[in-house]
Amino acid sequence: MNGTTNFILSAMDATGAGFAEALEEATELGYAEADPTADVEGFDAAAKAAILASLAFHTRVTAADVHREGITEVTAADVASAKAMGCTIKLLCIAARGVDEAGRETVNVRVHPAMIPLTHPLASVGDAFNAVFVEADAAGQLMFYGRGAGGAPTASAVLGDVVAVARNRLAGVHSASESAYADLSVRPMGEALTRYHISLDVADRPGVLAAVAGVFARHEVSIATVRQGPTGGDAELVIVTHVAPDAALAATVHELRGLDTVRSVRSVLRVEGGA
Amino acid sequence: MNGTTNFILSAMDATGAGFAEALEEATELGYAEADPTADVEGFDAAAKAAILASLAFHTRVTAADVHREGITEVTAADVASAKAMGCTIKLLCIAARGVDEAGRETVNVRVHPAMIPLTHPLASVGDAFNAVFVEADAAGQLMFYGRGAGGAPTASAVLGDVVAVARNRLAGVHSASESAYADLSVRPMGEALTRYHISLDVADRPGVLAAVAGVFARHEVSIATVRQGPTGGDAELVIVTHVAPDAALAATVHELRGLDTVRSVRSVLRVEGGA
Repeated sequence: MNGTTNFILSAMDATGAGFAEALEEATELGYAEADPTADVEGFDAAAKAAILASLAFHTRVTAADVHREGITEVTAADVASAKAMGCTIKLLCIAARGVDEAGRETVNVRVHPAMIPLTHPLASVGDAFNAVFVEADAAGQLMFYGRGAGGAPTASAVLGDVVAVARNRLAGVHSASESAYADLSVRPMGEALTRYHISLDVADRPGVLAAVAGVFARHEVSIATVRQGPTGGDAELVIVTHVAPDAALAATVHELRGLDTVRSVRSVLRVEGGA
Repeated sequence: MNGTTNFILSAMDATGAGFAEALEEATELGYAEADPTADVEGFDAAAKAAILASLAFHTRVTAADVHREGITEVTAADVASAKAMGCTIKLLCIAARGVDEAGRETVNVRVHPAMIPLTHPLASVGDAFNAVFVEADAAGQLMFYGRGAGGAPTASAVLGDVVAVARNRLAGVHSASESAYADLSVRPMGEALTRYHISLDVADRPGVLAAVAGVFARHEVSIATVRQGPTGGDAELVIVTHVAPDAALAATVHELRGLDTVRSVRSVLRVEGGA
C-alpha cells in the first residue's frame, strides 16, 4: 500500500542492490521524498492499514494500534534468501480478524516486510504499483491493483474523490459512511500467528543443530524446514518455522542470539501467504 | 470476464489438453453448464463487455455491437505456440476508445481469444478467476480481480448488489446512474488495429517466403517476426505482424489460404498487450 517502498524492494529484487542504493534511485526518480521516513519506516502504510481495517471490519482502529516495522533493515542477502526459496520480499499491511483465547472477536493490524511466494498474486505487484488483496468467506480472493505513486495517478485519485463528494452533496447523501458497530478488540502483535525465516551463522561443529532445535522446542515453535550451507569456516543454518504466536518466535530469536554456538543472527523475516 | 472459459484455457495451458477434454473437466467441476454455448462462444462475455463499455465511456453499446469469437477453435497447438513465444492465451474482452479516419470519436468493443505476454498482469489471472484491466490517461494501469464462477462467490456478489440497492432506496438515491452523453459511434471490427500470430504449413522449397511476404505487403501489413521450423517433409512458418486494421489482416489470411505454396493455415490468433 506504499508505492515508494514497493519501488525500492522491486529494485533490490531486480538488481541485487542494497537498501541505501535502491533508496537513492527512488529519490532521483521522484518516488521518494527528501525525507523518506514516513514511507520507509512504514508510517504511511500503517495509517492506510488503520483506515482500511476500520472500514473492512466495521470497528475503530487507529495508527497507534498498528504494529509497524519498516524496510530499512532489509538487506541484499535477505532478498537473495527469498529468491532461493521461490519468494520475494514485500512490505505488507495485514489486517486479520480472529478470535482470541478468551473467545473475544479481535482484529490484528500490522505492517512489516515479509517473504511471500512468487505464486501469490501480490508477488507480481512491482515497482510503484500497489494492491489490496482481500480474502473473504464467500467471495473468496479479490485484488485491487493500481499505481501507488507519481504525480498524475495521485492527482487523478484526489480529483476523483472531490468529484464523488460533490456528487454526493448534490444528491444529499453521505456515501463513504463509516460504522464501528463490531467494536473488535485489537489483538497485540505478540498474539498474532506468524511464520519466521531465520538465518544463523553458527559454529561448524557437532551438536549445533541439536542446541538450536532445543531453543525452538522450549518456546513450542515447530520447525518446518532447515537448510544448512557452509559459509567459509562457519556454517549457515536457514530455518523456516510453522505458524506460532509472534511473541514465541521473537523470544526464540532472542534466546538464539545468546547461544554460544550461534555467532550471529543474520536475518529474521516473517513469511506470509503460504500454506 | 468469464470464469468458465478462463478455467478451460488455464487447464489447456497447464496440461496440454485440447478444448474438448478441458471442457469436460470444467463440466464435471460445475464450472461449465450442461449447454456451455453462452460461455464458450463468448455470448456471456460480449454482454458484460457491452455493459462495461457503456459505463466506462458514457455511451450506449449493446451486445449486438460487440465483435464476438469464442474459444472452441483454440487448439493444443495454439497453446503450445503461445508458450514458445512467452505468452498465454486468454479470452479477452476489449473496449477501446479512439478516433476514426473521419475524425469522429469511436469505441470498438470485441471479444476474442488472444495471446498475451506472461509479463502482463492479466496473464496471471488463472482458473475460474476473472479480472478487469483498465488503462487510463492519468490514473495509469488498474486491475480488479476476483472469482468469476462458483456458487458462493456468485451468491455473495448478487447479495451485495441487493444490499446496495436497498441502501440506495432508503437514502432515496440512484447510485449506479448510467449516462450516454458521449454518444460515441461504434467502430467496426475491420477498422480495429490488431496484431496477428499466423502459423502456416508451407512447401519446403525456395521462394516460399518471398511469395508469402508478398501477400502481406499487398495488404500493407508489416511483419514483426518470422520463425521457420521444418515439420516432417513440409516446413512451418510462424509469422507475427505489427498492428494493422483487422480487415487487412483478415484479407491477408484469406489470400494466404489460396496460395499454392501454402498447404494449410494451421492457426490464426490475435496478439494483445504487447508493445
